Parts: sequence; structure tokens; C-alpha cells
Amino acid sequence: MQVRVFIAGVDGYLGWCLAQYLAARGHKVAGADAFFRRQWVEEMGSQSAIPVATMRQRLQAFKESYGMRLSFWEGDLREYSIVDRICREFQPEAIVHFGECPSAPYSMIDRDHAVFVQMNNITTTFNLLFATQEICPQAHLVKLGTMGEYGTPSVDIPEGFFEVEYRGRKDRLPFPRQAGSWYHWSKVHGSNNIMFACKIWGLRATDVMQGVVFGTRIDEMGNDERLRTRLDFDQAFGTIINRFCCQAVIGHPLTLYGKGHQKRGFLPLRDSMQCLTLALENPPRAGEYRVFNQLEEVYDVTELAMKVQKVASDMGLKVEVKNLENPRQELEEHYYQVDHQNLLDLGYRPTHDVEGEMCIMLQDLIKCRDRIDVHRELLIPDVRWDGKRAKVGFLEWQNVLGRR
Amino acid sequence: MQVRVFIAGVDGYLGWCLAQYLAARGHKVAGADAFFRRQWVEEMGSQSAIPVATMRQRLQAFKESYGMRLSFWEGDLREYSIVDRICREFQPEAIVHFGECPSAPYSMIDRDHAVFVQMNNITTTFNLLFATQEICPQAHLVKLGTMGEYGTPSVDIPEGFFEVEYRGRKDRLPFPRQAGSWYHWSKVHGSNNIMFACKIWGLRATDVMQGVVFGTRIDEMGNDERLRTRLDFDQAFGTIINRFCCQAVIGHPLTLYGKGHQKRGFLPLRDSMQCLTLALENPPRAGEYRVFNQLEEVYDVTELAMKVQKVASDMGLKVEVKNLENPRQELEEHYYQVDHQNLLDLGYRPTHDVEGEMCIMLQDLIKCRDRIDVHRELLIPDVRWDGKRAKVGFLEWQNVLGRR
Repeated sequence: MQVRVFIAGVDGYLGWCLAQYLAARGHKVAGADAFFRRQWVEEMGSQSAIPVATMRQRLQAFKESYGMRLSFWEGDLREYSIVDRICREFQPEAIVHFGECPSAPYSMIDRDHAVFVQMNNITTTFNLLFATQEICPQAHLVKLGTMGEYGTPSVDIPEGFFEVEYRGRKDRLPFPRQAGSWYHWSKVHGSNNIMFACKIWGLRATDVMQGVVFGTRIDEMGNDERLRTRLDFDQAFGTIINRFCCQAVIGHPLTLYGKGHQKRGFLPLRDSMQCLTLALENPPRAGEYRVFNQLEEVYDVTELAMKVQKVASDMGLKVEVKNLENPRQELEEHYYQVDHQNLLDLGYRPTHDVEGEMCIMLQDLIKCRDRIDVHRELLIPDVRWDGKRAKVGFLEWQNVLGRR
Repeated sequence: MQVRVFIAGVDGYLGWCLAQYLAARGHKVAGADAFFRRQWVEEMGSQSAIPVATMRQRLQAFKESYGMRLSFWEGDLREYSIVDRICREFQPEAIVHFGECPSAPYSMIDRDHAVFVQMNNITTTFNLLFATQEICPQAHLVKLGTMGEYGTPSVDIPEGFFEVEYRGRKDRLPFPRQAGSWYHWSKVHGSNNIMFACKIWGLRATDVMQGVVFGTRIDEMGNDERLRTRLDFDQAFGTIINRFCCQAVIGHPLTLYGKGHQKRGFLPLRDSMQCLTLALENPPRAGEYRVFNQLEEVYDVTELAMKVQKVASDMGLKVEVKNLENPRQELEEHYYQVDHQNLLDLGYRPTHDVEGEMCIMLQDLIKCRDRIDVHRELLIPDVRWDGKRAKVGFLEWQNVLGRR
């Protein structure tokens, strides 16, 4: 079964991989991007550790490798006219929405950034919803949410909804969200809007509560440099394992925030591609709004730092694990039990080789050492949740697990 | 205790009343407005049934009646510079946020209106939050939400949060929201953002889940025409009892949507003022985000139509109750049990005289008959939740209760 998939935000970390992963499986892919991610990382004073080709180069390489064109529109998806045109011209059967600003710290910089992130993320989602309703109402919207929407409640986290008994009566309700940044809340707002659109217009959507993705490549890219995806390490766009690996290759301590026992769901880049493709190949029925918790496994972040340390050590890279003052407001030790059965039921096979993936990452990133080292100072965050902007310091004490 | 209260949206239905209610009790009041409500109603092709004075006239009358100036800024609160200036100049101890677009049908007109309503409501809320944090962090934010945030779950509706047991573990969680329009969702987005601001910045806020307000006056206005507040009857800004009374005075059938057994919380305008003032005079502690369900009682809307019919009949006005095709997507018969103890605990004394209030309303509105009758056709809605725009028709069958 070939699916015509439109990827909003095709120039990003996940978007560029998904275009290739889908093309390699015979799906027809189109994409749009305004290159905001490139600008935002530049604004943070940083760059992708892995050099990324221009979109012109990318499109040429895509055609050479996959034997098909990737239809591409350059444009800002906050403008409805562009979304309208794309949907009319491409007539997608599925839309993957990566066209959002994905950074918690970026959204916490100040008022302008908070407003920008929520406005951007809500407006692009609205535009895709309205265009779908008007032009391609059968199309399946795959919306990238985040496990961060749920926060860290003291009860198990189901996949989107839960059966609850309250004062002797029962109902199936949306599971309460307790996000931890303006960005994470923007994802909650989007989830709520999409749930409602499915209800009133009969649209079909998969809302992906994704864990933290890590990885420098997927196999489909082969050795073509132009097909490589970006990998960020700055405080705003560098997610945790990616940042650990960048720190490791330049001999910078792996930095944990606070006590460092935050638990999160994680998954390798290749698993994310597998999961998203499963969602695309198995669409929900008309009117259905379904939620997938997309992760390979839950890990304590100190445990992950130790894994990176170990893998790096095996490669001859000596690296410390250190605790920093936490710039965020979050629990640093907490209960965390997450359902993630829906994707397994669709056939997801987790790779379960976190250390193997870290090994590949370190090998890739060693070649990019200079690009990271030149921005070394960016590895210590200064965007704080209390609204102040000042570098956090190393903590005196060492994390118990980190002191092995 | 005198409180310095800044009212965002002071020109509106509630804002203009609250300014007077507070001034009459010795509080110091300031306000801002961009007169959007006047524009929106004009855009709907309508006007306020009760003539409203210009702001210049209002301010003059305010000074004459209450012996104090109302500091007023004309401006769009989406612009941070204005909010910043107001907070610096007035140094509020409390901020009441009425500066939002309050209409479900208006938000459902099309994409532009959906985006506008959510952007406006989120941005104004953000601006008030950031200005509070920066300039007056002790100020108490009273945010107008709506009972519509909760939707109509099959379990009891608590005040914002509930203790839940799930798979053998317990937590206190935000009660899940299931709003019924883009407008109602904008209020949920705002509630979520405010809850988070209180958590990370230690702000204090009262989030008012208000029922549907009805009424043409509060006693404080006396007989000064310039102090009267607006009263809308168009499909977008005319709320249900207000619209019923406008229909009654021109001999138009009272219109129920669908089966007409929607249950909602209601309260008279004077009760709303009493409740908001109690919230203002009893602020939460720093960091506390509290939710009040603000209503006098829950009523079935057919029951309310019958009450208006009866009161009108006593005044010699003959009026039918008729069911219309429902332009919305909502349950027309459902469970509805709502906690509303918090305000009672603070001393709220419900007037419990719905029919008395309706009598006053009909007497006021009879004088405005011509202003309603000239827009008679607006009493039948055409904004539909399915995205189409077409007048709904009367239903063949009569509502059982409505056929008495």
C-alpha cells in the first residue's frame, strides 16, 4: 500500500529522516519548510554538529537515492494560503505535522518566545486541520506531540485516555496534562484542538506522545553526506542523549540537571521512523482521535549518562558525569509508569540496543568534534524557568549513581 | 480593605458592571479596552439591545456617580507595551482578565475567526502573566474562564482538580477538560497557561469557571443611562437567557437548540459581581492557582425557557417555545452535577430569584423593542459547528416540556 504523505517541517531532524524512510518503502512524499529550525539554532548561537546540506542539495540527493522526486514547498505554514495550495496540489492521504517549534528552553527565554512558540504551533495546526476538512477530509493527520504533555503524575500514564471512577460514577476521559514549559503546553493545546476537530468534523488523527529521540542516522541515508539529518547540542534544541554524545566527544562532562533522576521515555531515531510509519500505514477510522505513547523504554537520565560514559570509555574517550543546578522547574525524582502498548500491537519491534546506538552516534560525532568544540560554552544552559537568564553552576555534590 | 483593581476589557458586558460594583465598595479601579466587542457585534450585523454610551460619556458618568476617576487606557492588550505601561503606571494589586473574545459561535465561523479567537485570548493572557511577573508579582489575577471548559462528562465536575485513584495509586490531578468550541478551548489553553505560571513564578490566580450570566443591570447603575451595560442578542454574543428575554419582548419564539435539555450553570449579573468581588477581596496565597465554579444553580434550558415564558405571560407578553435544529455539536440530554462550594465558603449569597431577575430584564428590554426587532432575523443562528453557514430550521416535533 502506497500512501501519499505530506510532511510539514521536512527540513528538520525528524522530517528529513521520515521523508527518506517512507520513500525507501515506496510511499510518495512531499514536504514543506520555512527553514525556521536553522534560524532558531543560529539564534541560540549554535549550529548542527553534523553539517547539513541545503534543501536544493538535499532534493537532488533524494532523487538520486530513492528514484523519485520529493515535492517541496518553501513557506511558512502559519499562512493558510500555502497550506491550502499544498493540499490542493498534492492531495495528501496523510499529513505528518512536524511544523512546530520543538524546544522547551526556547519557549522559556522570554515573553516574545513564549508567544511565538504557542502562536506558531497552534496556528500551523489549525491551518492543517482546516485545510484537511476543506480539501482532503479523509486524510490522516499524524501530529507530533510529546510525552512531556503528561508531566510526571503519581499514577500510571495511559495512552491519552483513561477509565476513571469518581464518586461512584464512571467515564472515559482525556488523561490530565501537566506540561512543564510553554512549549510543552503548546503541544497540549494542539492535542486538544485536534481531538475536538476529529469530534466535530469526523477527521482522523494519531497524536504521537513521543519520548526523547536520539541518534545521528538511519540506515537509509547510506553514506551520502547530503542525506544526513541535523543534530543539535545547544541548550534549546539539543535533546539529552544527543547532547551527552556531543559532550563526550569533546571531553566535556555529561551534564545532569539537579539530582538527575528524572525518568523519561526514550527511543532511537530509527525506532521513531518505524513507529511513525506504522501509524501511517495503519490509519484510524474516520472521526477517530487516537493517542500513541511512542517510546522504546523508560530510563533514568543518570542511567543514560552512565551508558554514554561506558560506551565512550570503550572507545577510549574519558568523560565525567556532573550535576548542574537545574535551570528548569521539575521533579528530579518521581514515579513514572507509562503505557506504550498501542504501537507494539501494530507491530513495532523496539531495537532495544541503546548502547549500540550510542556507539554509532559517538563514531559519527567524533568527526564533527570541531563544530561542537567551537560552541563548547553552549553546553551549560542559561535559560531558566524563573525568567532570569544566567548560566547555571556545577553542583558541589555528586550524584550517587554518577559517582560509581 | 481597598484593592487596586485593573480590569482588562472594561468596556464589555461584565467589565463595565464590575468597575461600578467595585467603585461603589470603595475599591480603586482602572481599565483598558480596544472596543473589540462593539466591533464584533457590528460584524455579526447586530447591536446591543440596550443603548451603550461612548467611553467618554461612561467615564464622565462614572466620576459623577462614584466620586472617583476610572483610569482608562484605550488599547489592544495583545501589544505587550500597553500592558507593561498600564502595570507600571497603575501598579495593580489585582487584575481581572475580561480582555478575551467570549463567543463560541464567533470562533466557529471559519479558520480566520478560530485563529483570531485563540491567538487573541492566549496572547492577552500571556501579556498579563508576564507583566505581572515582571512588574507586580504579588498581584492577584482573576481570570474569566467558563463552565464550558469542562464539557458534559458522565461524572461529577469538581472545582478544577480532583482526587483520583487509578490502578491502585492516588493523585490530585487537573480535572480533564472537554470543551465544545474553539472559543471554549481557548479558555482551557488559558487556564493551563495560568496554572503553569503560578507553579513556576509563584503568581497567585483565581480561575473562574463561570456559568452563563443573565441580567440587564445591577443596582449600582441607578437610573443613569450612561452607566448601563450592553446586552447582546445576536447568535454569537447573545447568551441564552438574555436572548430569550429579547425574543420574548418582540414576540419571537424562544428558541431551544435540538432537544433542548442541555443543562448548564447560570447566575444573575448581580451574583457574578458579588462572586468576583469576593474573589478579589479574598486573594489566594502566592503560588496558589485556585479554581471557582461560579454559578447560582444548574438548570435545564427548557426549564429556563418555560420560566421566561411564564414571567412574560404575567406581563401580558404571549410567547411560544420552539425547538430548532441544533447548529452545535453537543449532547442535548446528559448528566450534569457540578460542585460550587468554594464561593459559598467565601460568603457568596445566591439571590435565588431567577424569575424576579427575568421580570426586571423584560421591563428593561421592552423599552428597547425596536432595537431588537430591526435585527429579528439574527435570532435564528446560521453558524454551524460542521463548518457550513446556513440558517437552522424549526424542528417539526415539539419539546415535551415545551408543549405544556
